[in-house]
Amino acid sequence: MEMSHRSKSFIDIHERAKSDLKEIMLIPDDYRIMFLQGGASSQFSMVPLNLYVNKKADYAETGSFAKKALKEAARYGEVTVIASSADKNYSYIPKLDASSFSKDADYAHITYNNTIYGTRFSSAPDTGGIPLVTDMSSCILSEPCDVSKFSLIYAGAQKNVGPAGLTIVIIKKELIGHALDITPAMFNYALHDENDSMYNTPPTFAIYFAGLVFKWAKDFGGLKALGALNREKSSLLYDCLDNSALFKPTAQKDSRSIMNITFVTGDKDKDAKFVKEATQAGLVNIKGHRSVGGMRASVYNAMPLEGVKKLVDFIKKFETENK
Amino acid sequence: MEMSHRSKSFIDIHERAKSDLKEIMLIPDDYRIMFLQGGASSQFSMVPLNLYVNKKADYAETGSFAKKALKEAARYGEVTVIASSADKNYSYIPKLDASSFSKDADYAHITYNNTIYGTRFSSAPDTGGIPLVTDMSSCILSEPCDVSKFSLIYAGAQKNVGPAGLTIVIIKKELIGHALDITPAMFNYALHDENDSMYNTPPTFAIYFAGLVFKWAKDFGGLKALGALNREKSSLLYDCLDNSALFKPTAQKDSRSIMNITFVTGDKDKDAKFVKEATQAGLVNIKGHRSVGGMRASVYNAMPLEGVKKLVDFIKKFETENK
Repeated sequence: MEMSHRSKSFIDIHERAKSDLKEIMLIPDDYRIMFLQGGASSQFSMVPLNLYVNKKADYAETGSFAKKALKEAARYGEVTVIASSADKNYSYIPKLDASSFSKDADYAHITYNNTIYGTRFSSAPDTGGIPLVTDMSSCILSEPCDVSKFSLIYAGAQKNVGPAGLTIVIIKKELIGHALDITPAMFNYALHDENDSMYNTPPTFAIYFAGLVFKWAKDFGGLKALGALNREKSSLLYDCLDNSALFKPTAQKDSRSIMNITFVTGDKDKDAKFVKEATQAGLVNIKGHRSVGGMRASVYNAMPLEGVKKLVDFIKKFETENK
Repeated sequence: MEMSHRSKSFIDIHERAKSDLKEIMLIPDDYRIMFLQGGASSQFSMVPLNLYVNKKADYAETGSFAKKALKEAARYGEVTVIASSADKNYSYIPKLDASSFSKDADYAHITYNNTIYGTRFSSAPDTGGIPLVTDMSSCILSEPCDVSKFSLIYAGAQKNVGPAGLTIVIIKKELIGHALDITPAMFNYALHDENDSMYNTPPTFAIYFAGLVFKWAKDFGGLKALGALNREKSSLLYDCLDNSALFKPTAQKDSRSIMNITFVTGDKDKDAKFVKEATQAGLVNIKGHRSVGGMRASVYNAMPLEGVKKLVDFIKKFETENK
């Protein structure tokens, strides 16, 4: 942790982490990988500040973070909300095709996985040529991803990658170097590109840790194997919930996240009882976000199949006891 | 490291770290403590974006980082370089008093300790009432500090506090809430103040680690005891260098840092030989920055007196062998 970021030892760690991530995600050569700070929330500003040319962007509003992202972009240009699932409390992913997007938008933005609402895009929509930007904070490394369909992917590290405080940016080279004049130096992708994410001291320990996770993911069999495991984990839960008379998932079937499984009983007291008893049984952090209520099982890469099986058993037991 | 930043456990860690820092640094009640990301380099933008009212600021140019800070501030307003030690390769701290500062400046900025050049301010200059802002990245917690003399203190954590990726901001409440319209959300102190540094996921592990260091500093006897030790460490080195016929310190006597001791032989080959042999003897990271050349011994809080004694012995031995 005291290692200088300019030392050969750390530069090797940094390079290895980048090349392993490139390998796992099959990132094409015309993309740059950056290890930054400030979380997805900083990207909410950096994206418009760096990508605006006509100062026009399309945003899909699929949850709280999508809303925060578009609100920030609207401070610097004209944002078109091309689709929203606010009408049904963000319980689904709107259908998007080339006709959904503005012809003159500088980029289009989607939140790939919506942590709070338990929904996810199952593939990159066809934007008709507009650069596609996506927040993958809560689903990066969860399943195979065709990077070439996106012009910019960003993700906070704290779900599937490593300790909080590291932000991954995967950006097509051609998008770098067009920042608005008002962009703070540290919010300019070009500065980080020129300095290979080493303009100032990077979060060295978090990068080291992320590198270990990339190596682990590679040894595990890459995103194909992780995707298979995550589909198995989430299917176990969804099947159990779909067959339950007491519980039901909140996300629509075709929009379900494989990382965050949100469900309710429909009765607040029963939800609270479930959360309490689950916690007592060692199944912690199961309470849903206040925007949805009920329960949320986050089954990120670090959650083993065994953990999901225990939750399924507990759900069945609870249902029997609370008919 | 997987702990949710919204969990009671982490909120306790966060609060404890803040209250321990407040206690060690004797931070008055009208200041707010923030744990942010992005390093001092992000503060170079945040300071002008949040403190500009008349868009005028005074900067003392005492080294590379001071220059970076003023360059960034000059992008958003009018910067007056009130003093510079560039004429002597930043080997001294210019004398400043109330007459040095502009009457209509929104704030004045000094870099308290200049890591590369081995210089430091020994006290806060009298600005004649203008809010004083300082970068303490390489000297925070190194000695007692009268916080009330400053309106804003910022510091990257990686020298004396904890892992890279955490930035400490200590700011007078009255300075919060006046950000320029163009300020990105995450660069607005008001946002972090309203959310108690928890607007988005903070660097939880780095904050936990910093909390352990604050506790350690408290148990050690606080900044008084640390200051005494650091003065002892640096005096040992400076005395040895002042009495040497081969080596000499690069910083002027009244401007010397107690964290970074820079010295040269005056002969590049001998400097290189010293660095090589020191490294072989286990005295690592002793090479000076290319802007100064020679050697730099950084004796941050984590460096024990024993380590400094070893270096002094090595310096004497090298001098005997290379007369």
